[in-house]
Amino acid sequence: MARSRTGFWLVGAKGGVATTTIVGLIALKKGLSETVGLVSELPQFAELGMVAWDDIVIGGHDIRDVSLLDEAWKLVYESRALDGRMIEKIRDDLTALDANIQDGTLHNVGKKILEYATDELKAVQETPREAVDRLKGHIADFAKANDLDRVVMVNVASTEPPVDGEQFPKTWSELEPLLANDQCQLPASSLYGIAALELGHPFINFTPSLGTAIPALDDLAKTQNTCHMGHDGKTGETLLKSTLAPMFANRNLKVMSWVGHNIFGNMDAKVLDDPENKKTKAVSKDRLLGKILGYSPQTLVSIENIDSMGDWKTAWDHIHFQGFLGVPMVMQFIWQGCDSLLAAPLVIDLARFADLAKQKGETGLLEQLSCFFKSPLGTEENDFARQFAMLEEWTESIKS
Amino acid sequence: MARSRTGFWLVGAKGGVATTTIVGLIALKKGLSETVGLVSELPQFAELGMVAWDDIVIGGHDIRDVSLLDEAWKLVYESRALDGRMIEKIRDDLTALDANIQDGTLHNVGKKILEYATDELKAVQETPREAVDRLKGHIADFAKANDLDRVVMVNVASTEPPVDGEQFPKTWSELEPLLANDQCQLPASSLYGIAALELGHPFINFTPSLGTAIPALDDLAKTQNTCHMGHDGKTGETLLKSTLAPMFANRNLKVMSWVGHNIFGNMDAKVLDDPENKKTKAVSKDRLLGKILGYSPQTLVSIENIDSMGDWKTAWDHIHFQGFLGVPMVMQFIWQGCDSLLAAPLVIDLARFADLAKQKGETGLLEQLSCFFKSPLGTEENDFARQFAMLEEWTESIKS
Amino acid sequence: MARSRTGFWLVGAKGGVATTTIVGLIALKKGLSETVGLVSELPQFAELGMVAWDDIVIGGHDIRDVSLLDEAWKLVYESRALDGRMIEKIRDDLTALDANIQDGTLHNVGKKILEYATDELKAVQETPREAVDRLKGHIADFAKANDLDRVVMVNVASTEPPVDGEQFPKTWSELEPLLANDQCQLPASSLYGIAALELGHPFINFTPSLGTAIPALDDLAKTQNTCHMGHDGKTGETLLKSTLAPMFANRNLKVMSWVGHNIFGNMDAKVLDDPENKKTKAVSKDRLLGKILGYSPQTLVSIENIDSMGDWKTAWDHIHFQGFLGVPMVMQFIWQGCDSLLAAPLVIDLARFADLAKQKGETGLLEQLSCFFKSPLGTEENDFARQFAMLEEWTESIKS
Amino acid sequence: MARSRTGFWLVGAKGGVATTTIVGLIALKKGLSETVGLVSELPQFAELGMVAWDDIVIGGHDIRDVSLLDEAWKLVYESRALDGRMIEKIRDDLTALDANIQDGTLHNVGKKILEYATDELKAVQETPREAVDRLKGHIADFAKANDLDRVVMVNVASTEPPVDGEQFPKTWSELEPLLANDQCQLPASSLYGIAALELGHPFINFTPSLGTAIPALDDLAKTQNTCHMGHDGKTGETLLKSTLAPMFANRNLKVMSWVGHNIFGNMDAKVLDDPENKKTKAVSKDRLLGKILGYSPQTLVSIENIDSMGDWKTAWDHIHFQGFLGVPMVMQFIWQGCDSLLAAPLVIDLARFADLAKQKGETGLLEQLSCFFKSPLGTEENDFARQFAMLEEWTESIKS
Repeated sequence: MARSRTGFWLVGAKGGVATTTIVGLIALKKGLSETVGLVSELPQFAELGMVAWDDIVIGGHDIRDVSLLDEAWKLVYESRALDGRMIEKIRDDLTALDANIQDGTLHNVGKKILEYATDELKAVQETPREAVDRLKGHIADFAKANDLDRVVMVNVASTEPPVDGEQFPKTWSELEPLLANDQCQLPASSLYGIAALELGHPFINFTPSLGTAIPALDDLAKTQNTCHMGHDGKTGETLLKSTLAPMFANRNLKVMSWVGHNIFGNMDAKVLDDPENKKTKAVSKDRLLGKILGYSPQTLVSIENIDSMGDWKTAWDHIHFQGFLGVPMVMQFIWQGCDSLLAAPLVIDLARFADLAKQKGETGLLEQLSCFFKSPLGTEENDFARQFAMLEEWTESIKS
Repeated sequence: MARSRTGFWLVGAKGGVATTTIVGLIALKKGLSETVGLVSELPQFAELGMVAWDDIVIGGHDIRDVSLLDEAWKLVYESRALDGRMIEKIRDDLTALDANIQDGTLHNVGKKILEYATDELKAVQETPREAVDRLKGHIADFAKANDLDRVVMVNVASTEPPVDGEQFPKTWSELEPLLANDQCQLPASSLYGIAALELGHPFINFTPSLGTAIPALDDLAKTQNTCHMGHDGKTGETLLKSTLAPMFANRNLKVMSWVGHNIFGNMDAKVLDDPENKKTKAVSKDRLLGKILGYSPQTLVSIENIDSMGDWKTAWDHIHFQGFLGVPMVMQFIWQGCDSLLAAPLVIDLARFADLAKQKGETGLLEQLSCFFKSPLGTEENDFARQFAMLEEWTESIKS
Repeated sequence: MARSRTGFWLVGAKGGVATTTIVGLIALKKGLSETVGLVSELPQFAELGMVAWDDIVIGGHDIRDVSLLDEAWKLVYESRALDGRMIEKIRDDLTALDANIQDGTLHNVGKKILEYATDELKAVQETPREAVDRLKGHIADFAKANDLDRVVMVNVASTEPPVDGEQFPKTWSELEPLLANDQCQLPASSLYGIAALELGHPFINFTPSLGTAIPALDDLAKTQNTCHMGHDGKTGETLLKSTLAPMFANRNLKVMSWVGHNIFGNMDAKVLDDPENKKTKAVSKDRLLGKILGYSPQTLVSIENIDSMGDWKTAWDHIHFQGFLGVPMVMQFIWQGCDSLLAAPLVIDLARFADLAKQKGETGLLEQLSCFFKSPLGTEENDFARQFAMLEEWTESIKS
Repeated sequence: MARSRTGFWLVGAKGGVATTTIVGLIALKKGLSETVGLVSELPQFAELGMVAWDDIVIGGHDIRDVSLLDEAWKLVYESRALDGRMIEKIRDDLTALDANIQDGTLHNVGKKILEYATDELKAVQETPREAVDRLKGHIADFAKANDLDRVVMVNVASTEPPVDGEQFPKTWSELEPLLANDQCQLPASSLYGIAALELGHPFINFTPSLGTAIPALDDLAKTQNTCHMGHDGKTGETLLKSTLAPMFANRNLKVMSWVGHNIFGNMDAKVLDDPENKKTKAVSKDRLLGKILGYSPQTLVSIENIDSMGDWKTAWDHIHFQGFLGVPMVMQFIWQGCDSLLAAPLVIDLARFADLAKQKGETGLLEQLSCFFKSPLGTEENDFARQFAMLEEWTESIKS
């Protein structure tokens, strides 16, 4: 495979996940970091010709007026996550990248996210169609300026309030005209997705927001010969659920109740502290249990903003199950992970795998990437081990 | 498949695991219990023609002078595990079964287990060969008296001190003559295994004792057209290790250390309180991590006897791992399970699957049953999900 | 001190706490149980002449149509809490006691508690004053029939919705006339309290309901030369908070956040599942931290009904604190206690101590009993060790 | 009280605890840190005239050839404990202090500690008396050079192997002559203590090593009109034990077993990895339970070196207790603290309180400081709340 350059376009490019992703990519380019945490660097994926660190160019959209360097320092000193010596070494690179980040759109992002937006952006008057065209312009300019062969868009922006996807028409030709209307209920995440797909670029939704998770946008992807996938990156508690629940199922142990409490305090937590936005997330975290077990135990999922926790998400899960002869037993786990650092490598992995899929001519939903998502689109498979096997099978198939 | 009767012959037939297994089998025969916890009752194994509850007859060996009913009441009131109402309903059945349990052998069981044996058994003078022949007599009489088509032996006796399997010759024809000598280093678990295999019956070693885990006894199994498997039933902490470690591997998260502390207080715990016997167990609990991860993190496994815990085994595991950009994170779990009730259904499953394998003409080691064992013989696969897939593939293959 | 007889009158006499209290008292009378869990049986309280087990007579009010024996069996088989052998031995005593339990009142108990009441009770038409007089009649008859020297009332009924105590006049002479009016906002717990105090009996409020926690009823208690105390028995998570928070304070460790999640599934949990009733409880569990620490860390307290847990309340608390040089550290605890069995001995202790106080001529609030309450009335002391010292000092003072 | 200057002389001055203590003192002098974690800064101790930050001069003994600055950076980057920005600001102060740290003694430190010593120190030939005199010379020079009014010595060196204190004579006049003999079994910690006491300076033993915990050295302290105290700073798990065990006692809940597992990976952990040294520590951590409860539950304490943990000590404690009517319940806690940062403020507190005691004319053991120690000398009080009350009572008494 001839060497080629790919742009990674991040929506929410100055948030914690994006900042960590960017710090990580620069560190990888400069040889300042090992590849721990990167699925795409596992030995079984070594010979696929994925884009090399040096061939990745970073750009993105955001709605806040902050600098990547400041955000990185917050991850050092407020979150006690990143190592300050690394930031010191890449400070110029970070500062330079601010120029690659353009103004996004606030269309239907909800009142909580609006609080963080710049005044300029709040003053913008445009139809959804005009917004999409403006976003497309940014990406096209970026691709041209950096001489890119391909671009992959990944949405890592804050979670939007829930939108009922059922309300939209099922085909792109029916949906497209609605963009001309200000009252169009599509949220920002969908407009970003449309921008990417219309340009023929893959779109990955790392958040539980709507994005491209409606038939009309799958239709658009296929029409444009490109691919997309989502949603909601599976980083911590849900990863464990999708790993542990199959064990209970395979041992025929009956889960009576599964309670999960999550606390953290980063910007994502603050956005989720709004009941509307939280609703989108809790549904995404909870749905897989019934699918894996084949029955529905009583479940409880809470996500709470605790300021002192910063980026360190702690989850306590209490699993009450029945063993042989009806005897109740308990498994509990406590997960203490740094949210941004769990998410960032998966963002890089997803962009690389989606870039590969695009090259291999895949169109529509990329079910083979389901192991990365809490609520994978296009598949009912929620067992992490089986999802991972799907990824291995696909990469095996495209080697030949 | 024509209906047929199978004997389940338990070694250590009055211990906690066996008592629970027997209570469970009687409850299943009488419709007093659901099938929760039984792998062999999962829908995917429904059409295999496994032996039905009513066609199972129970017998076994033990070395203690206690009654099954007394042992069952201990599991009700000392361990707070079984439901007294169930024992009340099956008390006559339990009492009747005492007659099916014969005197085992104390050959090389170690000083700790000797403490529990009857004086009569301690006074027995016999060579290993004489012991084997006596044991075989019990089983043959049992099969005849109960008009059995097949018998499966499962060893659920207390853990013996470690024995170096390398010291024994590699073929049965070389090993067999050594049985005539009192000084033969084979432990009791191996003599039971020889008794089963010489009679052509499958042998399952649910303990970490030596059993049939040497080439000469695999040779015997094949010669006799029968099968065997071991060792050490995977019931709790190790089950979780074999489920969680692949997740860390598949996400390329680097496990730096994995600490596991286990406390419990049943008879098994008291036997393991002897440092010699404990050694056999700890090795078995710890070896799989390196095999799954591909590297060896620092590990620590302790198993301690705490009287007040009774049959309730509690494990605390602390997994310290490195994420992206080298950031250390922690997962901890606490497992509170009732040891006998976790083991008993697996004993039933193993006996049923081994009985099926025997009918299907399988000989030698049954690697397809590796998901049931901490240290499965004949395979390097320690990933629980993949081990379970092996079982599904095998059962699929014999359906046709 | 001459031997004398005391009646223990329980409000909510057929609930889990009361049933356990009654089972325990009968077991103590019959020598079937040790005194573990009873504060009043500690050596330092041995010479106070507290009422002996044989001199206690049990009666009470309830609103449900169930039998004590059935409730006791639920605690054996549904909750896996009590030992069935004990219930078997006292079944006749339990059955006989049903006759000592009279119909209570539903005045302002809230819609959730109403769901559990008998139809007869729901049909009753009476003013608060009439209700109080009816309740007083029950108690007076009970005292006479059993030749009692004294009676102590303890409220262990389900938690009522919150009532603002500020709305009531501050003196009994102003409040009393309001009882003639159906619209009087006093809840049932206050009517029970009035009944007890008007008869000159001590009243203990083991729940977070209003009870006698208003100035006018303290006035009544003093007028009647009797005593009262509340509220909300400190059994588990809050007991730990009041023990651990002083340690953080005394070490000058700065608590940044304290998160507590509680799950359980008994009837109390089901009543608290109603948001109105839950509010009463959560406030009571949370207020002490600021008082002990002298500042207010971010706190979160959840109480959730999880059916499978039954009477076993599990609390996970995550305490995020700052140490020297601002370094954040974490303490977590998991408490797995059986709710009724933690509460019952304290009910007995409170009744015995209140009975003693009455004999010693104490009137008004019994601050010396603050160690038993989540929100002790009449004192700002929330440090468990200091509260306990107050109890020891008082009992020391009345010895002389 | 007239302003005066005090020297804090640290034994093991380049270890993790001492380095953190020194960093903290410099930060306090420069106003770079708040006083979180410092008991001596609580409001109730404000008017005692304790030595001010600016009036403290730091010196000490060590046996390793390392620099304070390097050790401080290790606490930043290896342990993720200290904030690098603080070290940056005080680097010159740290570097300057290396000159105040003199060569200690290796007399009877055990083979594990010897591994860390400089070759020069290993080559030293001197009797215990010569060693004591050399150490005294260092301290006297330090006091003179810095114009100090007083000096307090605190031992924060690694734990020595156990020594039986019973072997030594009971008076100083009998013990003193033995120092002339190379074979004298007194360990280094005792020689440091003798050096301090002979100079009339207070000696505080923050470790479980022998130090001055024998009658002959208490005799010496009194003869010299000075004071001493030990041993083993109570920083984490044992602090919790001494806080929680009284709660179980006061509620008459019967502790059946208390299991505590500790993992960490700093230099202290590596020294304790030697079974001899570990023995000294485990005894110290375990003895208080029986004293507080009045009976001896089954206990288990493990301390294990896990390299990846660095200075972060994690303890899991499992407390199995019996409640009312014999029902078993469980409390578990997990403590994740940074060892050096928990110890350092207590070292500062102890030096300040001992300095105050010296000024107030206290001689012999300072029992009023028992709240700081796992095994306080001269008192049987192990209840943390009561120990803290002793401190408050003493400081109250010296105000007048």
